[in-house]
Amino acid sequence: MPSVELQSLQNRLQHAFKDSALLQRAVTHRSFSADHNERLEFLGDSVLSLAVSTMLYRRLRDLPEGDLSRMRAHLVKQDSLHRIATQLKVSEVLRLGEGESRSGGKLRPSILADAVEALIGAVYLDSDFDTAQAMVHRFFEGVDLSPEQQAAAKDAKTALQEWLQGRKMHLPQYRVVATVGAAHKQTFDVECEIAELGLIEHGKGASRRAAEQAAATTLLATLKARHA
Amino acid sequence: MPSVELQSLQNRLQHAFKDSALLQRAVTHRSFSADHNERLEFLGDSVLSLAVSTMLYRRLRDLPEGDLSRMRAHLVKQDSLHRIATQLKVSEVLRLGEGESRSGGKLRPSILADAVEALIGAVYLDSDFDTAQAMVHRFFEGVDLSPEQQAAAKDAKTALQEWLQGRKMHLPQYRVVATVGAAHKQTFDVECEIAELGLIEHGKGASRRAAEQAAATTLLATLKARHA
Repeated sequence: MPSVELQSLQNRLQHAFKDSALLQRAVTHRSFSADHNERLEFLGDSVLSLAVSTMLYRRLRDLPEGDLSRMRAHLVKQDSLHRIATQLKVSEVLRLGEGESRSGGKLRPSILADAVEALIGAVYLDSDFDTAQAMVHRFFEGVDLSPEQQAAAKDAKTALQEWLQGRKMHLPQYRVVATVGAAHKQTFDVECEIAELGLIEHGKGASRRAAEQAAATTLLATLKARHA
Repeated sequence: MPSVELQSLQNRLQHAFKDSALLQRAVTHRSFSADHNERLEFLGDSVLSLAVSTMLYRRLRDLPEGDLSRMRAHLVKQDSLHRIATQLKVSEVLRLGEGESRSGGKLRPSILADAVEALIGAVYLDSDFDTAQAMVHRFFEGVDLSPEQQAAAKDAKTALQEWLQGRKMHLPQYRVVATVGAAHKQTFDVECEIAELGLIEHGKGASRRAAEQAAATTLLATLKARHA
């Protein structure tokens, strides 16, 4: 017989488990017991991916494969699953070992996101794909799939390039203006310039690529603020 | 009305399409038409992943998550899908643009593997997940999930380490013995030694890691030949 907390989690999931051991296991971290949620997470990860892929395929009929993949990666990333875990109040029922619990494991985004995947896997095993898929679609009910959100799912350099191309402008120029630190622990300082707009922004990162992305992100934010 | 070739592909898939346009699209490469198979491939990739995950979850009850993930990656990689494409004779029905066709596209493993994913996606849309899953399980009917095969799915360094640990032996020693070429185009020559067995093998690669893997692969082959 599940606890009161697990009962209300089932209400929030809108799924009453036939096999309550599956539910129990889904909220059990490996630090608590050998009967933990990692195999369920393995399964849930694939269920989530197919449910989200199907949703995107149906709702974004004109989008090419590359954009669909990017949107999917955006929706199933830790951030997004952590938000779902918060809505479901997963931390109320999470079972962690003492050490993990004391060091704040109940609030750790990775642990909470993994538990969401394990819960999806548990519902799939307890019922079938359609039931689990319907639940995943409820999780993403209000999700924003607008072109702006699609652009946000792109990396900043790509998004910036497409913004400029859409306005028939030249590509941005990236330049490394400084590297700091010893050979294997350098920080790169890169500037990104859009000459036609007289705009320059800087970005820092552990690699040239990361620094360029940071600079492009700042530049995009500046452009959006101007054009808001 | 599908062609004779597409009819026999349906027989091999054991699925008669209600919507034959889906089947047609699944075997159409982007070089042939704007109505090509890439969006179906996006969907099929996720269907394949869930079908294989479910099979592994059920058949390998004692395997931890990391091993399941490795086995899944091994089964859904291009090699494995290319083999399925050959069994299904996908190249007989593949529709390619002229240029791609002339340059041997019908035999290209990546194009054939992508078409298999697109076919899985098409069957899923034409019916449901259970039907598509049953088909994927037929594709992998005779697949070897033995411990030996599981070890093969691991990278060579990990497999070698586990082989040695299973026999209470010391870990192998890797040493870079030479680097050849200019700074950004170096080749590494690494030796891998198992002192207790008096064995040394070499490996070469574009990175230290790649060279170590190559050396471990050769050493594993030597060990297997000895212990066969």
